[in-house]
Amino acid sequence: MTPSGEGSNRVEIVTIGDELLLGFTVDTNAAYLARRLADVGVGVARRATVGDDPAVIASAVGEALSRTGAVITTGGLGPTGDDRTKPAIAALFGRGMHTDADHLAWMRQRWLDRFARPMPESNVNQAMIPDGSTKLANAHGSAPGVWIEDDAGRWVAMLPGVPREMRGMLDDVLLPRVQARATGQTVVRSRTLRTTGVAESLLADWIEAAPAAADLPGLAYLPSVDGVDLRVTVRGLSAQEADVRLAAAMASLRDVVGAAAYGQDDADLAAVVVDRCRERGLSIAVAESCTGGLLGARLTAHAGASDVIRGGVIAYHDEVKVGLLGVDPAVIGLHGAVSEPVVRQMAAGVRRVTGASIGLGITGIAGPGGGTTEKPVGTVWIAVDGLERVETRLLRLWGDRKEIRRRAAQSVLDVLRRSLVGT
Amino acid sequence: MTPSGEGSNRVEIVTIGDELLLGFTVDTNAAYLARRLADVGVGVARRATVGDDPAVIASAVGEALSRTGAVITTGGLGPTGDDRTKPAIAALFGRGMHTDADHLAWMRQRWLDRFARPMPESNVNQAMIPDGSTKLANAHGSAPGVWIEDDAGRWVAMLPGVPREMRGMLDDVLLPRVQARATGQTVVRSRTLRTTGVAESLLADWIEAAPAAADLPGLAYLPSVDGVDLRVTVRGLSAQEADVRLAAAMASLRDVVGAAAYGQDDADLAAVVVDRCRERGLSIAVAESCTGGLLGARLTAHAGASDVIRGGVIAYHDEVKVGLLGVDPAVIGLHGAVSEPVVRQMAAGVRRVTGASIGLGITGIAGPGGGTTEKPVGTVWIAVDGLERVETRLLRLWGDRKEIRRRAAQSVLDVLRRSLVGT
Repeated sequence: MTPSGEGSNRVEIVTIGDELLLGFTVDTNAAYLARRLADVGVGVARRATVGDDPAVIASAVGEALSRTGAVITTGGLGPTGDDRTKPAIAALFGRGMHTDADHLAWMRQRWLDRFARPMPESNVNQAMIPDGSTKLANAHGSAPGVWIEDDAGRWVAMLPGVPREMRGMLDDVLLPRVQARATGQTVVRSRTLRTTGVAESLLADWIEAAPAAADLPGLAYLPSVDGVDLRVTVRGLSAQEADVRLAAAMASLRDVVGAAAYGQDDADLAAVVVDRCRERGLSIAVAESCTGGLLGARLTAHAGASDVIRGGVIAYHDEVKVGLLGVDPAVIGLHGAVSEPVVRQMAAGVRRVTGASIGLGITGIAGPGGGTTEKPVGTVWIAVDGLERVETRLLRLWGDRKEIRRRAAQSVLDVLRRSLVGT
Repeated sequence: MTPSGEGSNRVEIVTIGDELLLGFTVDTNAAYLARRLADVGVGVARRATVGDDPAVIASAVGEALSRTGAVITTGGLGPTGDDRTKPAIAALFGRGMHTDADHLAWMRQRWLDRFARPMPESNVNQAMIPDGSTKLANAHGSAPGVWIEDDAGRWVAMLPGVPREMRGMLDDVLLPRVQARATGQTVVRSRTLRTTGVAESLLADWIEAAPAAADLPGLAYLPSVDGVDLRVTVRGLSAQEADVRLAAAMASLRDVVGAAAYGQDDADLAAVVVDRCRERGLSIAVAESCTGGLLGARLTAHAGASDVIRGGVIAYHDEVKVGLLGVDPAVIGLHGAVSEPVVRQMAAGVRRVTGASIGLGITGIAGPGGGTTEKPVGTVWIAVDGLERVETRLLRLWGDRKEIRRRAAQSVLDVLRRSLVGT
């Protein structure tokens, strides 16, 4: 029996691997899959993660098949002996396994071409597929994916666990196949407004006090180290109706949160800032102490940064602040390296030595050591030099070292963004 | 009925939230929980992720309870209306909900102390807990956790979804409670050997050819952008027996993979390099082009980096390579910015201008644009200057921009590590 109604636009995801269950690997595949499926109007009904135990794999996939009739698995297609997905699912469908001779020949040739040596025999397993299944081409690695389906139209698609291969195969082969089976109805579609610098519960108070709040479909608050994302979701509309509804909801949200919003959906604050500077012909340089390069790494994470980002100085040691940025050692002696005058000189200095139009400075105590009563861990000074005036801020950040560093970088980017839009 | 045998040392994890199911948030909590539980001898039998739908929450938690009798949930305890974990699970246990007056008073005071304003009314929900449940203190946020248990000893522990709060509550309150219930037997214990620079299937060939390979318990290969982790796992032994067995397995693995191994378990290559340099009184500076600060960020990610890391220059634009690092513009003109002579001058230059004993240089084409036939995307030159001789390498990296940048940083750290240990 083919699942009826909404069921035909829904799948379940089963991610497989002891490494996931033991927590040695964070499951990024599941999130990526869900987002790409949503793009083609297919929702994820439920997700499960199991270890490399054939009986448990078969049990979890079997439960998902009987609930939803459509299952995507990741993992367990690799060359090594801990990979058991294909035989477990073949058994669930009452099928045997055979070697795909074409794929084996292709793999052997690929090794010779790519690594200039014969393929290790460990890889032969990768060319085994269940009887009566369809191979899904892998242009990004050596393990093929597998599509297996029963007479009732219930199906399982098996993808590799390596994220790059999984993503490539999903986009190249599986999504078109899944989309072709989906009915015209959009199950679920979302938009997200990204905010930073305002607490979740304060945003909630603003939104609840606004007249438009009653008409925000499926509003969700998603707090993270970078800020709070506000997501609206509609279900059961056509793609066109959904887009209209979501556009209206996003406009309402933008009215309520004002300048706290920096972008939509996948927007990254660093990319937003780079784009704004590009439009205005401005260039950026960074002077980083406690963040150690994190701000520069974020600003250069996206392609095309080179026409805006000059570079900068990682002034971790005070002598580098003095030697490369021209910070006055007497000022460090008087105020300490984590101080307003020092961050001001760092931002001005990096702007001067790189020729950038805007200098960003960060100096702080990321912890866990190094805090004092006067300047506890989380004390961070930031500066933006170059847009008419110099702006400096004292931040009192919470969280662990990683979070404090991340929040410091996000904060200086946000000060720059607000300066650029004139708020 | 209390689950018998191995069951009493196993839990299931249910992570809750539309944002997880829709893929807007990557589920890092599940991995962290699994690792901390393993530390106290408790294994994760299975994991599920469901949306904010009370019926599906109850269904998934109910199935896990009947299979394993012990369930930890994360998510759905926040202040906003999309948080439905507590009432759904209370209903599963046939219980009502009530307001915990003490907690509400504490929350109100916390807002006044911390934010100097009254608590938003949206937060009141957080003080509701199921009848007959036990509150789990949250020293890291405002939502309390909840422990609920039936007469048969089956239990559910509800933790917040915000990672920092979840981690704090787990360590402070839940782990001691779970550990106290576990039987003396260790269910599962693992060790991991981290390698870099050698392909998974080549490692597999080495290991399968080694006499000791037959005695490697539960060997798993875990490839990632940083390299391949080799994990061994024992089940059903006492803690002491497990430690002996795993130590022997790790020694065998180290013999086989040799210098490809850089550490064990959670070891980070950057931290290993910093520690080795500290032992020898060496300091490091970085000169980064395509990685834009990523290498510096990794080297300063761990506390205590300041006695080894001087800082460096993010020489993204060629003028910064020339102006701050003293790279000869004629050399850039002749060989291009991505070339052996340039990376050599970058590493030497940053060493000179920062006074560091070791200079690391990276220049390359991270893509997706900027590649040529001669220098395709993924072409990266790295250099290590300062340990008797200058070492340079041409890398031909694959993957997307993010992976190429990550692999470039990992590679230069590995060249330095191998130089430091003299291999």
